[in-house]
Amino acid sequence: MAQAPIEIVAFEWVPRFARGHVRDLRARWALEEIGLAYRTRLISAMDRPAAYFSEQPFGQVPAYREGEIDLFESGAIVLHIAEKDERLMPRDPAERARACSWLVAAVGSVEPPIMELMTIDRFSAAEAWAPLRRPGLVAFIEQRLGRLATALGDAPWLAGRFTAADIMMVDVLRNLPAEGLQIPQSLRDYIARAEARPAFQAALAAQLADFTPDRVSRKEGMQA
Amino acid sequence: MAQAPIEIVAFEWVPRFARGHVRDLRARWALEEIGLAYRTRLISAMDRPAAYFSEQPFGQVPAYREGEIDLFESGAIVLHIAEKDERLMPRDPAERARACSWLVAAVGSVEPPIMELMTIDRFSAAEAWAPLRRPGLVAFIEQRLGRLATALGDAPWLAGRFTAADIMMVDVLRNLPAEGLQIPQSLRDYIARAEARPAFQAALAAQLADFTPDRVSRKEGMQA
Repeated sequence: MAQAPIEIVAFEWVPRFARGHVRDLRARWALEEIGLAYRTRLISAMDRPAAYFSEQPFGQVPAYREGEIDLFESGAIVLHIAEKDERLMPRDPAERARACSWLVAAVGSVEPPIMELMTIDRFSAAEAWAPLRRPGLVAFIEQRLGRLATALGDAPWLAGRFTAADIMMVDVLRNLPAEGLQIPQSLRDYIARAEARPAFQAALAAQLADFTPDRVSRKEGMQA
Repeated sequence: MAQAPIEIVAFEWVPRFARGHVRDLRARWALEEIGLAYRTRLISAMDRPAAYFSEQPFGQVPAYREGEIDLFESGAIVLHIAEKDERLMPRDPAERARACSWLVAAVGSVEPPIMELMTIDRFSAAEAWAPLRRPGLVAFIEQRLGRLATALGDAPWLAGRFTAADIMMVDVLRNLPAEGLQIPQSLRDYIARAEARPAFQAALAAQLADFTPDRVSRKEGMQA
């Protein structure tokens, strides 16, 4: 797909625990759902190119380029991709409003405490404050998950049928720890249902394939 | 504006420190910028009606209703309002992409650490972990603010001219503590420039007016 008009910026290497969890997965997944090809440009996560900050002000991935359009923030990118195709974003105004609300809720109300927990567990576990802070944060996340489960109810997807909102929400929920936190069964089923989609599997495989040692070696060769 | 077709759900009372900082301000501000009337429906922040969780899954404000459209999450609401008028959302695809990216960045990359700090200072200051956690968080926020200032540069607004992205970003930045944190002067100027806009002033006055003791008394009367 080297000539595809859509370019996604992703990392060429990340630690093992982060593989399959870098946010370019969301953009890849959205594109796979509607069958749009893309090319990737890989940058170093450990030594982010100074010039990249002019594309992505915080140095994060993904960034997205399509002709004259430059986007950053996975939520904005997924929303932009979704606008291309009714399969990801309903045209009916009321359904669209529901999908947009849930897409932003994933970013603004569900992801922050989950990222805070992941940051504690991955990077601050040895700090004195971490075990003291953790229980209150876990309780807060569990409350949020309970309310999310109530809102989902018996429905398979957040906005009636599958939309871009489910891409964002599921990928946020995938960062929950595997143990030590009460996750309602309906949300576990929701995540599994989404991960079973061929487009998710293709996106995951594509992200993992971009971390191949072969590519790392090539990059090291270029630096040498 | 009791008959306005747009309804915003806000709180009837909040503690003094939160007045002028509740997120319905963002929706009011966006509507004021384009001269659209709205009505408010006020609910109790302290005793949120159980039925409200079916409108807003996490019980937060604002929620937004316009005919058959129901929205929640301030970012989704401001985006919806912005789509109505070029003054808040450019029609040019490249400019629009920039505004959308920054709008989501405010929610996803700038607000979370600022809210974490505000939560520590307002609700957890007496906890043993709070003073231990705070310095690392402050350093992280200062790094984000530095990168935001770099991205803004000498421009008055994030996407070239004023857009919905500035509404979101400025209202996020307004939650920074007044002291004890390095805020680049260009960001202080950016906030002041936005707060000087008549639409911001009108929105702020409207939020504050909805907290009148008169209204609180009425509500207490209704509960009695």
